[in-house]
Amino acid sequence: MALKVYADRMSQPSRAILIFCKINDIDFEEIRVDVLKNQQFSPEYKAINPMSQVPAIIDGRFKLFESHAILIYLSCAFPGVASHWYPGDLSNRAKIHSVLDWHHSNLRRGTVGLVFNTILAPLVGLPSNLQTAKEAEKILMKSLSKIENFWLKDGRFLVGSSQPSIADISLVCEIMQLELLSEKDCDRILSPYKKVVKWIEDTKKATAPHFDEVHDFLFKAQKRIRERKATESGKNEVKSKL
Amino acid sequence: MALKVYADRMSQPSRAILIFCKINDIDFEEIRVDVLKNQQFSPEYKAINPMSQVPAIIDGRFKLFESHAILIYLSCAFPGVASHWYPGDLSNRAKIHSVLDWHHSNLRRGTVGLVFNTILAPLVGLPSNLQTAKEAEKILMKSLSKIENFWLKDGRFLVGSSQPSIADISLVCEIMQLELLSEKDCDRILSPYKKVVKWIEDTKKATAPHFDEVHDFLFKAQKRIRERKATESGKNEVKSKL
Repeated sequence: MALKVYADRMSQPSRAILIFCKINDIDFEEIRVDVLKNQQFSPEYKAINPMSQVPAIIDGRFKLFESHAILIYLSCAFPGVASHWYPGDLSNRAKIHSVLDWHHSNLRRGTVGLVFNTILAPLVGLPSNLQTAKEAEKILMKSLSKIENFWLKDGRFLVGSSQPSIADISLVCEIMQLELLSEKDCDRILSPYKKVVKWIEDTKKATAPHFDEVHDFLFKAQKRIRERKATESGKNEVKSKL
Repeated sequence: MALKVYADRMSQPSRAILIFCKINDIDFEEIRVDVLKNQQFSPEYKAINPMSQVPAIIDGRFKLFESHAILIYLSCAFPGVASHWYPGDLSNRAKIHSVLDWHHSNLRRGTVGLVFNTILAPLVGLPSNLQTAKEAEKILMKSLSKIENFWLKDGRFLVGSSQPSIADISLVCEIMQLELLSEKDCDRILSPYKKVVKWIEDTKKATAPHFDEVHDFLFKAQKRIRERKATESGKNEVKSKL
Protein backbone atom coordinates (compact mmCIF):
# COMPACT_ATOMS: atom_id res chain seq x y z
CA MET A 1 0.00 0.00 0.00
CA ALA A 2 1.44 3.36 -1.05
CA LEU A 3 2.09 6.13 1.45
CA LYS A 4 -0.97 8.33 1.96
CA VAL A 5 -0.44 12.08 2.20
CA TYR A 6 -3.37 14.10 3.58
CA ALA A 7 -2.89 17.63 2.31
CA ASP A 8 -4.40 20.88 1.13
CA ARG A 9 -2.24 22.72 -1.41
CA MET A 10 -3.34 26.04 0.13
CA SER A 11 -1.33 24.99 3.22
CA GLN A 12 2.39 25.68 3.06
CA PRO A 13 3.51 22.62 5.11
CA SER A 14 1.29 20.42 2.91
CA ARG A 15 3.05 21.72 -0.19
CA ALA A 16 6.45 21.03 1.39
CA ILE A 17 5.56 17.35 1.90
CA LEU A 18 4.15 16.97 -1.63
CA ILE A 19 7.22 18.55 -3.26
CA PHE A 20 9.54 16.41 -1.12
CA CYS A 21 7.73 13.18 -2.12
CA LYS A 22 7.74 14.12 -5.81
CA ILE A 23 11.40 15.19 -6.03
CA ASN A 24 12.42 11.97 -4.27
CA ASP A 25 10.23 9.68 -6.40
CA ILE A 26 8.34 8.44 -3.35
CA ASP A 27 5.24 6.54 -4.41
CA PHE A 28 2.28 8.19 -2.66
CA GLU A 29 -1.40 8.91 -2.87
CA GLU A 30 -2.48 12.52 -2.24
CA ILE A 31 -5.76 12.83 -0.37
CA ARG A 32 -7.18 16.32 -0.31
CA VAL A 33 -8.43 17.69 3.00
CA ASP A 34 -10.17 20.94 2.04
CA VAL A 35 -9.42 23.31 4.92
CA LEU A 36 -11.74 26.06 3.63
CA LYS A 37 -14.55 23.47 3.80
CA ASN A 38 -13.51 22.48 7.38
CA GLN A 39 -12.81 18.88 6.31
CA GLN A 40 -9.93 18.79 8.85
CA PHE A 41 -12.59 18.67 11.59
CA SER A 42 -14.36 15.56 10.26
CA PRO A 43 -14.29 12.52 12.60
CA GLU A 44 -12.50 10.52 9.87
CA TYR A 45 -9.66 13.03 9.64
CA LYS A 46 -9.50 13.57 13.41
CA ALA A 47 -8.78 9.84 13.73
CA ILE A 48 -5.66 10.51 11.61
CA ASN A 49 -4.70 13.85 13.15
CA PRO A 50 -6.54 14.80 16.36
CA MET A 51 -5.07 18.32 16.05
CA SER A 52 -7.22 18.87 12.93
CA GLN A 53 -4.39 20.27 10.86
CA VAL A 54 -2.82 19.36 7.54
CA PRO A 55 -0.59 17.66 6.50
CA ALA A 56 -0.61 14.15 7.95
CA ILE A 57 0.58 10.83 6.56
CA ILE A 58 -0.28 7.16 6.92
CA ASP A 59 2.52 4.75 6.06
CA GLY A 60 1.19 1.22 6.44
CA ARG A 61 -0.38 1.39 9.89
CA PHE A 62 1.76 4.28 11.09
CA LYS A 63 0.10 7.69 11.35
CA LEU A 64 2.11 10.90 11.71
CA PHE A 65 1.47 14.64 11.73
CA GLU A 66 3.60 17.83 12.02
CA SER A 67 5.33 18.55 8.73
CA HIS A 68 8.92 18.65 10.01
CA ALA A 69 8.49 15.29 11.76
CA ILE A 70 7.03 13.94 8.50
CA LEU A 71 9.92 15.28 6.37
CA ILE A 72 12.46 13.69 8.74
CA TYR A 73 10.54 10.39 8.80
CA LEU A 74 10.29 10.23 5.00
CA SER A 75 14.00 11.05 4.64
CA CYS A 76 14.87 8.06 6.85
CA ALA A 77 12.13 5.59 5.84
CA PHE A 78 12.65 5.75 2.06
CA PRO A 79 16.13 4.56 1.07
CA GLY A 80 16.12 6.43 -2.26
CA VAL A 81 16.26 9.87 -0.58
CA ALA A 82 19.65 11.56 -1.18
CA SER A 83 21.52 12.37 2.03
CA HIS A 84 21.65 16.15 1.46
CA TRP A 85 17.93 16.38 2.29
CA TYR A 86 18.59 15.25 5.89
CA PRO A 87 22.32 14.75 6.50
CA GLY A 88 23.53 11.78 8.53
CA ASP A 89 26.49 13.74 9.95
CA LEU A 90 25.72 14.66 13.57
CA SER A 91 26.56 18.37 13.47
CA ASN A 92 25.04 19.01 10.03
CA ARG A 93 21.86 17.26 11.14
CA ALA A 94 21.82 19.30 14.36
CA LYS A 95 21.98 22.53 12.35
CA ILE A 96 19.02 21.40 10.25
CA HIS A 97 17.08 20.70 13.47
CA SER A 98 18.09 24.13 14.78
CA VAL A 99 16.73 26.04 11.77
CA LEU A 100 13.56 23.89 11.67
CA ASP A 101 12.91 24.60 15.38
CA TRP A 102 13.69 28.30 14.97
CA HIS A 103 11.19 28.45 12.10
CA HIS A 104 8.11 27.77 14.29
CA SER A 105 8.21 30.90 16.44
CA ASN A 106 9.72 33.16 13.80
CA LEU A 107 9.16 32.90 10.04
CA ARG A 108 6.06 30.70 10.38
CA ARG A 109 4.49 32.79 13.13
CA GLY A 110 5.08 35.98 11.15
CA THR A 111 3.75 34.69 7.82
CA VAL A 112 0.69 32.93 9.24
CA GLY A 113 -0.27 35.93 11.42
CA LEU A 114 0.07 38.38 8.55
CA VAL A 115 -1.60 36.38 5.76
CA PHE A 116 -4.43 35.12 7.97
CA ASN A 117 -5.34 38.53 9.39
CA THR A 118 -5.08 40.50 6.15
CA ILE A 119 -6.24 38.03 3.48
CA LEU A 120 -7.65 34.69 4.61
CA ALA A 121 -9.86 35.71 7.56
CA PRO A 122 -11.79 38.41 5.62
CA LEU A 123 -12.08 35.97 2.69
CA VAL A 124 -13.86 33.29 4.74
CA GLY A 125 -15.79 35.71 6.96
CA LEU A 126 -13.74 35.15 10.13
CA PRO A 127 -12.77 38.05 12.45
CA SER A 128 -9.35 39.52 11.68
CA ASN A 129 -7.12 41.61 13.89
CA LEU A 130 -5.07 44.30 12.18
CA GLN A 131 -2.95 44.89 15.29
CA THR A 132 -1.98 41.19 15.25
CA ALA A 133 -1.23 41.48 11.52
CA LYS A 134 1.06 44.44 12.22
CA GLU A 135 2.94 42.57 14.95
CA ALA A 136 3.15 39.49 12.70
CA GLU A 137 4.69 41.60 9.93
CA LYS A 138 7.37 42.78 12.36
CA ILE A 139 8.19 39.15 13.28
CA LEU A 140 8.25 38.27 9.57
CA MET A 141 10.66 41.11 8.64
CA LYS A 142 12.97 40.22 11.53
CA SER A 143 12.90 36.56 10.45
CA LEU A 144 13.73 37.41 6.83
CA SER A 145 16.63 39.51 8.05
CA LYS A 146 17.92 36.57 10.13
CA ILE A 147 17.67 34.27 7.09
CA GLU A 148 19.52 36.84 4.95
CA ASN A 149 22.27 37.62 7.45
CA PHE A 150 22.68 34.40 9.41
CA TRP A 151 21.09 31.27 7.99
CA LEU A 152 22.19 32.02 4.40
CA LYS A 153 25.46 33.71 5.31
CA ASP A 154 27.85 31.05 4.13
CA GLY A 155 26.14 29.18 1.33
CA ARG A 156 23.57 28.86 -1.41
CA PHE A 157 21.13 27.03 0.88
CA LEU A 158 20.29 27.19 4.61
CA VAL A 159 22.99 26.45 7.23
CA GLY A 160 25.68 26.97 4.60
CA SER A 161 24.86 23.96 2.41
CA SER A 162 25.63 23.72 -1.29
CA GLN A 163 22.59 21.44 -1.78
CA PRO A 164 19.04 21.85 -0.46
CA SER A 165 17.71 20.15 2.68
CA ILE A 166 14.22 19.58 4.09
CA ALA A 167 14.64 22.97 5.83
CA ASP A 168 14.92 24.81 2.51
CA ILE A 169 11.70 23.20 1.24
CA SER A 170 9.85 23.98 4.48
CA LEU A 171 10.93 27.61 4.78
CA VAL A 172 10.58 28.49 1.10
CA CYS A 173 7.07 27.00 0.98
CA GLU A 174 6.24 29.19 3.99
CA ILE A 175 7.49 32.34 2.25
CA MET A 176 5.48 31.45 -0.87
CA GLN A 177 2.33 32.05 1.19
CA LEU A 178 3.12 35.78 0.87
CA GLU A 179 2.06 35.45 -2.78
CA LEU A 180 -1.51 35.76 -1.48
CA LEU A 181 -0.82 39.39 -0.55
CA SER A 182 -0.99 42.14 -3.19
CA GLU A 183 1.96 42.26 -5.61
CA LYS A 184 2.98 45.57 -4.04
CA ASP A 185 3.01 44.21 -0.46
CA CYS A 186 4.79 41.02 -1.49
CA ASP A 187 7.52 43.05 -3.25
CA ARG A 188 7.80 45.53 -0.38
CA ILE A 189 8.38 42.68 2.10
CA LEU A 190 10.76 40.53 0.06
CA SER A 191 12.76 42.91 -2.14
CA PRO A 192 15.08 44.25 0.63
CA TYR A 193 16.41 40.69 1.08
CA LYS A 194 18.49 39.94 -2.03
CA LYS A 195 19.94 36.66 -0.74
CA VAL A 196 16.49 35.46 0.33
CA VAL A 197 15.10 36.20 -3.14
CA LYS A 198 17.98 34.33 -4.80
CA TRP A 199 17.61 31.39 -2.37
CA ILE A 200 13.89 31.09 -3.19
CA GLU A 201 14.79 30.89 -6.89
CA ASP A 202 17.56 28.35 -6.21
CA THR A 203 15.17 26.16 -4.18
CA LYS A 204 12.55 26.37 -6.93
CA LYS A 205 15.15 25.30 -9.52
CA ALA A 206 16.46 22.47 -7.32
CA THR A 207 12.93 21.06 -6.98
CA ALA A 208 11.68 21.81 -10.54
CA PRO A 209 9.25 21.05 -12.08
CA HIS A 210 7.45 19.92 -8.90
CA PHE A 211 7.73 23.23 -7.06
CA ASP A 212 5.71 25.17 -9.62
CA GLU A 213 3.30 22.30 -10.26
CA VAL A 214 2.42 22.01 -6.53
CA HIS A 215 2.20 25.83 -6.19
CA ASP A 216 -0.10 26.19 -9.21
CA PHE A 217 -3.08 25.89 -6.84
CA LEU A 218 -1.76 28.83 -4.77
CA PHE A 219 -1.12 30.96 -7.86
CA LYS A 220 -4.70 30.40 -9.02
CA ALA A 221 -5.98 31.41 -5.57
CA GLN A 222 -3.70 34.46 -5.71
CA LYS A 223 -5.20 35.48 -9.08
CA ARG A 224 -8.77 35.17 -7.77
CA ILE A 225 -7.93 37.12 -4.58
CA ARG A 226 -6.17 39.91 -6.46
CA GLU A 227 -9.04 40.18 -8.99
CA ARG A 228 -11.56 40.33 -6.13
CA LYS A 229 -9.51 43.03 -4.35
CA ALA A 230 -9.28 45.02 -7.60
CA THR A 231 -13.07 44.80 -8.09
CA GLU A 232 -13.69 45.86 -4.46
CA SER A 233 -11.24 48.74 -4.77
CA GLY A 234 -12.95 49.80 -8.07
CA LYS A 235 -16.34 49.76 -6.35
CA ASN A 236 -14.98 51.83 -3.47
CA GLU A 237 -13.52 54.32 -5.93
CA VAL A 238 -16.89 54.69 -7.68
CA LYS A 239 -18.61 55.05 -4.27
CA SER A 240 -16.17 57.76 -3.17
CA LYS A 241 -16.84 59.71 -6.38
CA LEU A 242 -20.61 59.60 -5.89
CA MET B 1 37.31 20.56 26.98
CA ALA B 2 33.93 19.96 28.63
CA LEU B 3 30.67 20.86 26.93
CA LYS B 4 29.63 24.46 27.66
CA VAL B 5 25.97 25.13 28.37
CA TYR B 6 24.89 28.78 28.23
CA ALA B 7 21.74 29.02 30.30
CA ASP B 8 19.53 31.04 32.61
CA ARG B 9 17.58 28.91 35.08
CA MET B 10 14.64 31.30 34.77
CA SER B 11 14.28 30.01 31.18
CA GLN B 12 12.36 26.77 30.80
CA PRO B 13 14.35 25.41 27.80
CA SER B 14 17.59 26.19 29.70
CA ARG B 15 16.39 24.10 32.63
CA ALA B 16 15.51 21.23 30.27
CA ILE B 17 19.10 21.10 28.95
CA LEU B 18 20.63 21.30 32.44
CA ILE B 19 18.42 18.50 33.81
CA PHE B 20 19.15 16.35 30.75
CA CYS B 21 22.94 16.78 31.14
CA LYS B 22 22.80 16.03 34.87
CA ILE B 23 20.56 12.93 34.66
CA ASN B 24 22.81 11.54 31.90
CA ASP B 25 26.08 12.28 33.69
CA ILE B 26 27.30 14.50 30.87
CA ASP B 27 30.34 16.47 31.93
CA PHE B 28 29.52 20.15 31.32
CA GLU B 29 30.21 23.67 32.44
CA GLU B 30 27.17 25.89 33.07
CA ILE B 31 27.67 29.50 32.04
CA ARG B 32 24.97 31.84 33.25
CA VAL B 33 23.50 34.30 30.76
CA ASP B 34 21.32 36.58 32.91
CA VAL B 35 18.35 37.40 30.70
CA LEU B 36 16.90 39.97 33.13
CA LYS B 37 20.21 41.83 32.81
CA ASN B 38 20.06 41.55 28.97
CA GLN B 39 23.30 39.57 28.83
CA GLN B 40 21.89 37.63 25.86
CA PHE B 41 22.38 40.79 23.78
CA SER B 42 26.11 41.12 24.51
CA PRO B 43 28.40 40.82 21.44
CA GLU B 44 30.14 37.84 23.11
CA TYR B 45 26.89 35.92 23.46
CA LYS B 46 25.60 36.96 20.03
CA ALA B 47 28.69 35.30 18.56
CA ILE B 48 27.40 32.06 20.12
CA ASN B 49 23.70 32.58 19.41
CA PRO B 50 22.85 35.44 17.01
CA MET B 51 19.18 35.05 18.00
CA SER B 52 20.04 36.31 21.52
CA GLN B 53 18.17 33.54 23.29
CA VAL B 54 19.10 30.94 25.85
CA PRO B 55 20.07 28.10 25.91
CA ALA B 56 23.01 27.50 23.57
CA ILE B 57 25.90 25.05 23.73
CA ILE B 58 29.48 24.85 22.55
CA ASP B 59 30.87 21.34 22.12
CA GLY B 60 34.50 21.63 21.05
CA ARG B 61 34.22 24.08 18.16
CA PHE B 62 30.58 23.29 17.43
CA LYS B 63 27.99 25.90 18.44
CA LEU B 64 24.28 25.09 18.61
CA PHE B 65 21.08 26.78 19.75
CA GLU B 66 17.36 25.85 19.95
CA SER B 67 16.73 23.57 22.91
CA HIS B 68 15.11 20.67 21.01
CA ALA B 69 18.00 20.57 18.54
CA ILE B 70 20.39 20.59 21.51
CA LEU B 71 18.56 17.75 23.30
CA ILE B 72 18.66 15.62 20.15
CA TYR B 73 22.33 16.44 19.54
CA LEU B 74 23.33 15.57 23.12
CA SER B 75 21.33 12.30 22.95
CA CYS B 76 23.33 11.24 19.88
CA ALA B 77 26.75 12.75 20.68
CA PHE B 78 27.15 11.26 24.18
CA PRO B 79 27.23 7.46 24.10
CA GLY B 80 26.15 7.09 27.75
CA VAL B 81 22.64 8.44 27.10
CA ALA B 82 20.01 5.67 27.46
CA SER B 83 17.98 5.08 24.29
CA HIS B 84 14.59 5.92 25.87
CA TRP B 85 15.52 9.61 25.88
CA TYR B 86 15.62 9.68 22.05
CA PRO B 87 14.64 6.30 20.61
CA GLY B 88 16.53 4.87 17.64
CA ASP B 89 13.43 3.15 16.26
CA LEU B 90 12.14 5.12 13.27
CA SER B 91 8.47 5.41 14.21
CA ASN B 92 9.09 6.03 17.93
CA ARG B 93 11.61 8.74 17.03
CA ALA B 94 9.11 10.26 14.56
CA LYS B 95 6.49 10.50 17.32
CA ILE B 96 8.99 12.31 19.57
CA HIS B 97 9.68 14.77 16.73
CA SER B 98 5.93 15.21 16.26
CA VAL B 99 5.26 16.18 19.89
CA LEU B 100 8.36 18.42 20.00
CA ASP B 101 7.23 20.25 16.85
CA TRP B 102 3.65 20.51 18.09
CA HIS B 103 4.95 22.05 21.33
CA HIS B 104 6.23 25.27 19.69
CA SER B 105 2.90 26.70 18.52
CA ASN B 106 0.82 25.24 21.33
CA LEU B 107 1.99 24.63 24.91
CA ARG B 108 5.03 26.91 24.59
CA ARG B 109 3.14 29.73 22.89
CA GLY B 110 0.40 29.58 25.52
CA THR B 111 2.71 29.49 28.54
CA VAL B 112 5.12 32.17 27.33
CA GLY B 113 2.31 34.54 26.29
CA LEU B 114 0.49 34.14 29.61
CA VAL B 115 3.46 34.31 32.01
CA PHE B 116 5.17 37.14 30.13
CA ASN B 117 2.11 39.36 29.91
CA THR B 118 0.85 38.82 33.46
CA ILE B 119 4.04 38.41 35.52
CA LEU B 120 7.38 39.02 33.80
CA ALA B 121 6.65 42.16 31.74
CA PRO B 122 5.24 44.18 34.70
CA LEU B 123 8.15 42.92 36.82
CA VAL B 124 10.83 44.33 34.50
CA GLY B 125 8.87 47.42 33.46
CA LEU B 126 8.03 46.25 29.93
CA PRO B 127 4.58 46.87 28.37
CA SER B 128 2.17 43.96 28.82
CA ASN B 129 -0.96 43.15 26.88
CA LEU B 130 -3.82 41.61 28.83
CA GLN B 131 -5.72 40.70 25.66
CA THR B 132 -2.67 38.71 24.49
CA ALA B 133 -2.48 37.08 27.93
CA LYS B 134 -6.13 36.05 27.65
CA GLU B 135 -5.62 34.53 24.19
CA ALA B 136 -2.44 32.80 25.41
CA GLU B 137 -4.37 31.25 28.30
CA LYS B 138 -6.87 29.82 25.82
CA ILE B 139 -4.02 28.26 23.79
CA LEU B 140 -2.51 26.91 27.02
CA MET B 141 -5.77 25.28 28.21
CA LYS B 142 -6.34 23.74 24.79
CA SER B 143 -2.76 22.41 24.80
CA LEU B 144 -3.11 20.89 28.28
CA SER B 145 -6.31 19.20 27.14
CA LYS B 146 -4.46 17.74 24.11
CA ILE B 147 -1.68 16.45 26.37
CA GLU B 148 -4.27 14.90 28.75
CA ASN B 149 -6.44 13.31 26.07
CA PHE B 150 -4.04 12.54 23.25
CA TRP B 151 -0.32 12.68 24.01
CA LEU B 152 -0.68 10.90 27.39
CA LYS B 153 -3.56 8.68 26.35
CA ASP B 154 -1.76 5.36 26.28
CA GLY B 155 1.10 5.59 28.74
CA ARG B 156 2.83 7.10 31.71
CA PHE B 157 4.93 9.42 29.53
CA LEU B 158 4.34 11.27 26.23
CA VAL B 159 3.57 9.32 23.03
CA GLY B 160 2.66 6.28 25.14
CA SER B 161 6.12 5.53 26.51
CA SER B 162 6.81 3.74 29.76
CA GLN B 163 10.07 5.71 30.19
CA PRO B 164 10.67 9.44 29.76
CA SER B 165 12.08 11.04 26.60
CA ILE B 166 13.55 14.45 25.81
CA ALA B 167 9.96 15.54 25.02
CA ASP B 168 8.85 14.90 28.61
CA ILE B 169 11.70 17.03 29.98
CA SER B 170 11.01 19.84 27.53
CA LEU B 171 7.24 20.01 28.03
CA VAL B 172 7.28 19.55 31.82
CA CYS B 173 9.90 22.31 32.20
CA GLU B 174 7.61 24.54 30.14
CA ILE B 175 4.61 23.83 32.41
CA MET B 176 6.77 24.54 35.49
CA GLN B 177 6.92 28.18 34.33
CA LEU B 178 3.29 28.46 35.51
CA GLU B 179 4.69 28.32 39.08
CA LEU B 180 5.41 32.04 38.63
CA LEU B 181 1.65 32.74 38.62
CA SER B 182 -0.27 32.97 41.90
CA GLU B 183 -0.95 29.63 43.62
CA LYS B 184 -4.65 30.11 42.87
CA ASP B 185 -4.12 30.68 39.14
CA CYS B 186 -1.62 27.84 38.87
CA ASP B 187 -4.10 25.43 40.53
CA ARG B 188 -7.03 26.70 38.48
CA ILE B 189 -5.12 26.03 35.24
CA LEU B 190 -3.59 22.64 36.08
CA SER B 191 -6.04 20.89 38.42
CA PRO B 192 -8.62 19.93 35.74
CA TYR B 193 -5.94 17.80 34.07
CA LYS B 194 -5.36 14.81 36.36
CA LYS B 195 -3.13 12.88 33.95
CA VAL B 196 -1.03 15.98 33.31
CA VAL B 197 -0.53 16.51 37.05
CA LYS B 198 0.49 12.85 37.51
CA TRP B 199 2.83 13.01 34.49
CA ILE B 200 4.56 16.11 35.91
CA GLU B 201 5.17 14.19 39.16
CA ASP B 202 6.38 11.11 37.27
CA THR B 203 8.82 13.20 35.22
CA LYS B 204 10.10 14.91 38.39
CA LYS B 205 10.66 11.49 40.01
CA ALA B 206 12.37 10.08 36.90
CA THR B 207 14.84 12.99 36.88
CA ALA B 208 15.29 13.36 40.68
CA PRO B 209 17.14 14.93 42.38
CA HIS B 210 18.20 17.12 39.44
CA PHE B 211 14.70 18.35 38.57
CA ASP B 212 14.15 20.06 41.93
CA GLU B 213 17.75 21.25 42.20
CA VAL B 214 17.59 23.00 38.78
CA HIS B 215 14.12 24.41 39.58
CA ASP B 216 15.18 25.78 42.96
CA PHE B 217 16.05 29.08 41.24
CA LEU B 218 12.50 29.32 39.85
CA PHE B 219 10.92 28.49 43.21
CA LYS B 220 12.93 31.29 44.86
CA ALA B 221 11.77 33.71 42.14
CA GLN B 222 8.20 32.48 42.67
CA LYS B 223 8.46 33.22 46.41
CA ARG B 224 9.74 36.77 45.79
CA ILE B 225 7.06 37.46 43.17
CA ARG B 226 4.24 36.14 45.38
CA GLU B 227 5.50 38.15 48.39
CA ARG B 228 5.69 41.28 46.24
CA LYS B 229 2.17 40.70 44.90
CA ALA B 230 0.90 40.18 48.47
CA THR B 231 2.52 43.46 49.61
CA GLU B 232 1.06 45.33 46.60
CA SER B 233 -2.37 43.86 47.22
CA GLY B 234 -2.12 44.84 50.93
CA LYS B 235 -1.21 48.40 49.96
CA ASN B 236 -4.16 48.56 47.54
CA GLU B 237 -6.47 47.30 50.27
CA VAL B 238 -5.26 50.02 52.66
CA LYS B 239 -5.66 52.62 49.87
CA SER B 240 -9.22 51.48 49.12
CA LYS B 241 -10.12 51.83 52.80
CA LEU B 242 -8.78 55.39 53.02
